[in-house]
Amino acid sequence: MWPTKKWDPRGQFCYVTGGSSGLGLAVAKALTNMGAHVTIVARNEERLTKALAELEELRQNPNQVICSYSYSLTDADSSNAALEVASKDHGGKYPDAVFMCAGAATPGFFVEEDANSMRKGMDNSYWVQAYTALAYTKAIVRDRTSGKLVFISSLLGYMSMLGYSTYSPGKYALRGLAETLRSELILYDCTVHIMFPGNIDTPGYAEENRTKPKVALEVDSSDKPTAPDVLATQLIHGVQRGDFHISPDILSNIFRSSTIGATPHHNVLLDGLYAVVGWIGLPLWRQGVDSKVLKHRNEHDEYLAAKGFFKTVL
Amino acid sequence: MWPTKKWDPRGQFCYVTGGSSGLGLAVAKALTNMGAHVTIVARNEERLTKALAELEELRQNPNQVICSYSYSLTDADSSNAALEVASKDHGGKYPDAVFMCAGAATPGFFVEEDANSMRKGMDNSYWVQAYTALAYTKAIVRDRTSGKLVFISSLLGYMSMLGYSTYSPGKYALRGLAETLRSELILYDCTVHIMFPGNIDTPGYAEENRTKPKVALEVDSSDKPTAPDVLATQLIHGVQRGDFHISPDILSNIFRSSTIGATPHHNVLLDGLYAVVGWIGLPLWRQGVDSKVLKHRNEHDEYLAAKGFFKTVL
Repeated sequence: MWPTKKWDPRGQFCYVTGGSSGLGLAVAKALTNMGAHVTIVARNEERLTKALAELEELRQNPNQVICSYSYSLTDADSSNAALEVASKDHGGKYPDAVFMCAGAATPGFFVEEDANSMRKGMDNSYWVQAYTALAYTKAIVRDRTSGKLVFISSLLGYMSMLGYSTYSPGKYALRGLAETLRSELILYDCTVHIMFPGNIDTPGYAEENRTKPKVALEVDSSDKPTAPDVLATQLIHGVQRGDFHISPDILSNIFRSSTIGATPHHNVLLDGLYAVVGWIGLPLWRQGVDSKVLKHRNEHDEYLAAKGFFKTVL
Repeated sequence: MWPTKKWDPRGQFCYVTGGSSGLGLAVAKALTNMGAHVTIVARNEERLTKALAELEELRQNPNQVICSYSYSLTDADSSNAALEVASKDHGGKYPDAVFMCAGAATPGFFVEEDANSMRKGMDNSYWVQAYTALAYTKAIVRDRTSGKLVFISSLLGYMSMLGYSTYSPGKYALRGLAETLRSELILYDCTVHIMFPGNIDTPGYAEENRTKPKVALEVDSSDKPTAPDVLATQLIHGVQRGDFHISPDILSNIFRSSTIGATPHHNVLLDGLYAVVGWIGLPLWRQGVDSKVLKHRNEHDEYLAAKGFFKTVL
C-alpha cells in the first residue's frame, strides 16, 4: 500500500502547481535538481517565464522535460486542461506525482467579509488544490497507473485564530479531503501526502501581511517565516519517506501529534512526546492569544466605529 | 468571555436551520419545550407546515413566538433574507442563538465525482451553515448585541474514510471556521459552539445510505445511529454549559480529545483519559478499516469496469 523503497524523483514526471513563485518554485527547483521532469503551472506568464529560466539553469541532463503553462487553477475546467496539456509533452502519460503548491491567503475580520470574499477564500485555499486532485486521480485510475498526490495545507489546517475565516476553513477542508483519499486511494496505486507548514518567507506572505489584522500580526510574529527552499526539501523528503502528514518543523510536529486522531503516526514514541508537549503547551499558548484578542476589544471597537460599521456610532 | 451562568433558553429567540426534519426539528422541539421563541427555516414547505404544527403542540405559554420560513440556505442572499424576515417577528431584534442544523451528505467514490458534485457537497456541508453564521455575526455586531453561534459538524470533521470526499472536507472546514470564530468573536459578545455527532437516525441518513459505497456502509455499521432527540438534548446541554466542542457520546469524546490541538479542553483529566484511549485504539480501528478497503480492491475494480470507467476494459 505504501512504498517501502524510498521514492526517487529522477526521471519522474512531476507536476507542480503554483510553480512560478514561493514554495511551488522552490519545489520545482529541488525536483529539477534531482533529475525529475518538471512542469510548472501558474497564472502569471511573466513570472512563469522567469521561473522556467531558473529551472533550465538547474537542468541535470539534456533529456529532462521542463515546461511551464499558464492556467487558472481555481476553475475546474481550466485545472483539467492544464493537466491534459502537460501530459501531451509526455505522450499522454499523466504525472508520477502532483505537488499542489498553489494557494493564497487574504486575512481580515469576519464581520468585514462578504459571501464573495468567503467564496474567493475557499477558491484560493481549497479548490485551487481539490480540482487538480480530482482531475489527476480520475486520470491515473482510468489509465490504471500509479501516482502521488501532494497537498499543501498549513498550520492553519491544525488550529486557527482571528483573521483567518476565509483561509483556515479551506486548509482544514484540505485535511478532510486528504484523510478521505488516504483511505479511499488504497483501492488504487496512489499515495497521498499533505504538508502543514507555518509561515513561509515568500512574496505571498508579504502580500498576506498587508491585510492581516494587527492582533493576528502580533501573534504571528512568534512564528518566524521559513525559507521556501528549506520547506521544499522537507516536503520532498516527507514524500520519499512515504509520510502521510508531513510536518516540517517542531511546531508542526507538535500540532500534528496533538490533532492526530486516526491519522497514521510517524514514530509512536516521538509522536507521544510531541503530543504531551502539545497537551501542556498549546492551551497555554491559546490562552495567551485569547487574552491578546480580549485586550484588543476597545481598539477594535473604535476601528469598526471609524469605518462606519455600526448602525449607531457611539 | 464565556458565560458562567447556565444559559436558559426560556424567552430567548432561537433560530434553527434545517428545522423541518431530523436533528433540526428535534432541536426546535426541545427549545419550544423549554419555553423559547423558535423560528425554523428549511426548504420543503410541506415538511415545514407539519413541523410547525408539531412545535405548536409543545408550546409552553401563549407568548411564545413560533414561526417557520421556507428559504434555501446554500445561497448567501437567501440566507440573509431568511434571517431578516425572522427578525421582523421580533421587532427587528436578531436571534439570541442560531442553531445551524441544515446539511446533507451524498457519499460516493471520488473518481465518480465531478466539479459540480464536489461544489454541491461543499454547499450542503459548509456553506449551508457558513452563510448563516456570516449574516448573523455581522447583524449582532452591528447591533452591539450578544449571541450564540451553534454549528453542527460531524465525526467526519474529526476523521474521514473512503466515500466522503464531497462531505468530510466541508465538515472539517466548519471546524476551521469555528476555531477561527472562537478566537475572533472574543472581540464581541458572541459565543461559538460546534457539535460533532456520529450517525443520526433521520430521513437524511437513510437517504445518504442509498449512495454510500458498500465498504463505507460496512465500516459505518459499527456506529449505530443515535435518535435525533437524544442528540438535541446533548447539544442544548453543551451550549448551556458553554462548551466549545460539543461531543455527544464516548466515540465523539475520544475523537475530540485525540484531535484537540489548541482547542479548549472540557475536563483536562477526563480528556486525557479519552486521548490515551484514542492514542491506542484509533490506529487499530483505522488499520481495520484500511484492510477492509484493501480487500475490496478487486470488487471495486470490477465495479468500475462494469460502469465503463476504464479506457481499456480488461
